[in-house]
Amino acid sequence: MKFNGRNVFISESAIIGKNVRIGDNSVIYDHVEIGDNTIIANDCVIGEPTNSYYHSKDYVNPKTIIGANSLIRSHNIIYAGSEFGEGFSTGHRVTIRENSKFGKHCRLGTVTDIQGYVTFGDYCWLHSNVHIGQQSKIGNFVFIYPYVVFTNDPHPPSNICTGVTIGDFSQVAVGTVVLPGIEIGKHCLIGAQSLVGIKVEDYQLAVGNPAKVLKDVRELKSRETGKSHYPWPYNFERGMPWENIGFEKWKLENGYEND
Amino acid sequence: MKFNGRNVFISESAIIGKNVRIGDNSVIYDHVEIGDNTIIANDCVIGEPTNSYYHSKDYVNPKTIIGANSLIRSHNIIYAGSEFGEGFSTGHRVTIRENSKFGKHCRLGTVTDIQGYVTFGDYCWLHSNVHIGQQSKIGNFVFIYPYVVFTNDPHPPSNICTGVTIGDFSQVAVGTVVLPGIEIGKHCLIGAQSLVGIKVEDYQLAVGNPAKVLKDVRELKSRETGKSHYPWPYNFERGMPWENIGFEKWKLENGYEND
Amino acid sequence: MKFNGRNVFISESAIIGKNVRIGDNSVIYDHVEIGDNTIIANDCVIGEPTNSYYHSKDYVNPKTIIGANSLIRSHNIIYAGSEFGEGFSTGHRVTIRENSKFGKHCRLGTVTDIQGYVTFGDYCWLHSNVHIGQQSKIGNFVFIYPYVVFTNDPHPPSNICTGVTIGDFSQVAVGTVVLPGIEIGKHCLIGAQSLVGIKVEDYQLAVGNPAKVLKDVRELKSRETGKSHYPWPYNFERGMPWENIGFEKWKLENGYEND
Repeated sequence: MKFNGRNVFISESAIIGKNVRIGDNSVIYDHVEIGDNTIIANDCVIGEPTNSYYHSKDYVNPKTIIGANSLIRSHNIIYAGSEFGEGFSTGHRVTIRENSKFGKHCRLGTVTDIQGYVTFGDYCWLHSNVHIGQQSKIGNFVFIYPYVVFTNDPHPPSNICTGVTIGDFSQVAVGTVVLPGIEIGKHCLIGAQSLVGIKVEDYQLAVGNPAKVLKDVRELKSRETGKSHYPWPYNFERGMPWENIGFEKWKLENGYEND
Repeated sequence: MKFNGRNVFISESAIIGKNVRIGDNSVIYDHVEIGDNTIIANDCVIGEPTNSYYHSKDYVNPKTIIGANSLIRSHNIIYAGSEFGEGFSTGHRVTIRENSKFGKHCRLGTVTDIQGYVTFGDYCWLHSNVHIGQQSKIGNFVFIYPYVVFTNDPHPPSNICTGVTIGDFSQVAVGTVVLPGIEIGKHCLIGAQSLVGIKVEDYQLAVGNPAKVLKDVRELKSRETGKSHYPWPYNFERGMPWENIGFEKWKLENGYEND
Repeated sequence: MKFNGRNVFISESAIIGKNVRIGDNSVIYDHVEIGDNTIIANDCVIGEPTNSYYHSKDYVNPKTIIGANSLIRSHNIIYAGSEFGEGFSTGHRVTIRENSKFGKHCRLGTVTDIQGYVTFGDYCWLHSNVHIGQQSKIGNFVFIYPYVVFTNDPHPPSNICTGVTIGDFSQVAVGTVVLPGIEIGKHCLIGAQSLVGIKVEDYQLAVGNPAKVLKDVRELKSRETGKSHYPWPYNFERGMPWENIGFEKWKLENGYEND
């Protein structure tokens, strides 16, 4: 239904892999490279020119790379100068500014807004309507839930831009704001609707406005099972590389011995 | 201005009622049924195929039903497999996933994001940028204000999905997060920017992060009139079925004797 | 790349200035006036008809004025009956309802939602995903950060609409909700994730849920310099009219002697 070639425009300088489908009304601008088997749904803009395009006659669109086996849902705007590993997946109306770098198998929810100049590792899942400020540095297997905001200006307005840093396997729950320059370790859990203005060490649960560290996440019991749910990789494997293998076995073979 | 038939595509399997207007650049996919006198504005996608469309050759689009006298504003994405009663109305850029069921005369504000597998009664009004997680169950005459989020995963990430339940006539104010599986009764008022992790009984006011029950809503006085504003149906009738009749008379004739 | 004249539709009653560029798939409806050197990017709707268009045969689109040297990024929906001073700039997917009045050099971030019937002075900068309720009155040089919401209904649902008022040079940080009818003075700073239900006098810092006044902003020291960052115009001039002049000199020549 969506792939009829109606109003599709592809720059001559774009490189399109094998078995790529591009939806109606989508535009692929200069110097975009799309890997094999990737789907770009309808009404997308891939390789959106950066701000200087509007002002400079000599503007050259920077390279944009979308990995193989990706699924970009409709109405995405992805700026030129970003790079996405294989298996990248997005909801609708996602906006991603330039100089964003994502590893493999990342997922972004509907209306999520990536401000550019950020790095994400592999298997990061962002839910709907997440806002990631510039200079954020995110590890692998990080989950970020709806309406979370990562900020970067400590004394607004200023010319300082100091992003948030988050370690592997950490979770930031719905509606939370993380203040500029804050460091969150690995295997952390940040509770819903929190305001995080402190450093959070590995394996800590931080909750509240303002957020305080409450306990070690390994002490948290599941209401359903009565057992600890964290570290979550032992209890959740859907879509993860340890699916059907188990985290215990996978971690030893993949350099995560200490997780 | 908006109905020129430019770039409008309608599936041959769609059933379009009498006096329906469809705006420029809108697409109506397979098995969509649109009731009489409904307006679909420009740049809408109605009957968006679900995820399996991208992977299955045998995909058949499930039925989508939009009731009579509805107004879908521009840039909506409504997935196949949902059903909307008559007089349905939306703002711009609304996204509604599959298996969403809305009663009559519901309204959704701009950028609102319905995650699918939800049920709403009649006359529910959601303001801008509301996010409703899967498995939410909402009664009749429920008002939800901007940037409210209903969640469903008690131990993220997990495979448990336990939605929020809300009774008739309740109100959830701006910026509030309701945690997974929480039950809110009827005629409740949840204050702005709250984090609701407790059960809220009928007629209670709950406020804060974390939310606590403060008092019975019937004790709340209006600053303007000095009288109680709640239960609000006695004091607000615009767009409600008791408009020009009064709630007292209407409730007796419509099965709401106890409200 | 974006200005090929593909699917561009411009009403015969629109007045387009010199050197205006209009992107592909954009629509300019009746009685829109666009100043010289302005850029309207792709997929925009300028002069969106108001609600009565759908119901009235005699509908006449009210005038919409977009000042010179503006940059409207892609996928904006700007209703008819609004007015924007020169140098207006927006991110993507901005929605602006009717009867919105903005002064010169205002900027709105991606997905921001202006509900109409609002006034903004000059040099107001709104970041991504800000929601401004009807009847808000904002001064000059006001900065509003992501996911801030200004409300207007004191007893929801009611027919009362009493907006927020904010004085010159004030800042409202990320994720904050300002309650109906609240007055915030000039040179104020409202902290992140706050719920503001009190009047905030000039130069005050208010923080928290619920927000309380903590101190005078002039007592706040920058972590980087050890000196006070506020009043910020003395320490930030990028894009401001005192750039390269200094605020001290500028204020004396422009009627801000007391700031």
